[in-house]
Amino acid sequence: MARTTSSAATRDRILVATTELFRRQGYSATSLSQIVEASSATTGSIYHFFPGGKDELTAEVLRVSGAGYGDLVESVVRSALDPAVGIGDAFAAAAALMQESDFIDPCPIGTIAREVASTNEPLRLVAAEVMNGWVRRLAAILTDANVSQGDAERLASLVVTTIEGGFVMARTLRDVAPFLTAGEVVQRLVADALGDS
Amino acid sequence: MARTTSSAATRDRILVATTELFRRQGYSATSLSQIVEASSATTGSIYHFFPGGKDELTAEVLRVSGAGYGDLVESVVRSALDPAVGIGDAFAAAAALMQESDFIDPCPIGTIAREVASTNEPLRLVAAEVMNGWVRRLAAILTDANVSQGDAERLASLVVTTIEGGFVMARTLRDVAPFLTAGEVVQRLVADALGDS
Repeated sequence: MARTTSSAATRDRILVATTELFRRQGYSATSLSQIVEASSATTGSIYHFFPGGKDELTAEVLRVSGAGYGDLVESVVRSALDPAVGIGDAFAAAAALMQESDFIDPCPIGTIAREVASTNEPLRLVAAEVMNGWVRRLAAILTDANVSQGDAERLASLVVTTIEGGFVMARTLRDVAPFLTAGEVVQRLVADALGDS
Repeated sequence: MARTTSSAATRDRILVATTELFRRQGYSATSLSQIVEASSATTGSIYHFFPGGKDELTAEVLRVSGAGYGDLVESVVRSALDPAVGIGDAFAAAAALMQESDFIDPCPIGTIAREVASTNEPLRLVAAEVMNGWVRRLAAILTDANVSQGDAERLASLVVTTIEGGFVMARTLRDVAPFLTAGEVVQRLVADALGDS
């Protein structure tokens, strides 16, 4: 039992360290030796848990952090008075996180996706599945609130687009204002759709 | 004269080749030796034109391609019936370009900005100046059409945010639909602002 726990802890430590490196510097700049150092793991243990090496580890980081980010956004949105307010809250929470973390990327997936989209098809497909999952989950929240399927899908896609673009702007400018502006607009559009439903 | 022309041609070839590499694979994955090969230049000539090496070359690529992309968007927007239609046209043109180019990144600046924002402050500042320039140019088009300064700045920021987020989505999903959805929404918001002005 102790050994299993320790194994799971090592695997988690590798995933967390790799995610943090990706949030600071993206995929291409992150070497296996940096991951070894940051996770206090050995190269052998990385290949033990991820026999495909850096790319298998990257795919797992995309899946785990993508699902985690999706869970977080969904819980923020669902705990609000209505989905429009909830989506506004999700933008505000992300803005606060960026400021607290000195503008480290809240979403390593968008950066990695853009780095690898033309050069690493297996990783592009994993990133696409993550993004499609976010859109599906947000669309489901909106259809639950009686927005039509088509409008829900378009709005959900717009939310993910503005969040990703907002991360580009906020990180580049070290300023959350453009991100919050985008959030206000999207919140208003969702409120309009809820009003029409 | 012949020598000057040839020199300028070599410098241009280096810039174009580097821009293309960045559009396919981003900043970190692009090595100086790849740039040498793709531009048919020598390492010596790269350091002749860009004594600071890869980072000085990268800064110049950001400035040149940023200004070029700004010029293109401004000319598309200004040649339309009104800025709302023009902004819709700019999204449509970018979508067409992505499909024609097999989804190579239309904007290496967004990818590079996100790759280097926490690790290379001089390059982050260049990317920020480029993005702020886009916002200023778009805001000027809107104030020329009698939109108030505050609304113009917010809308211009939103246009850049949605374009950048749209590139993330389109490149990841190999699908321009989310990009065009975002473009339609932004076009409608700009039309509303023009109607109010």
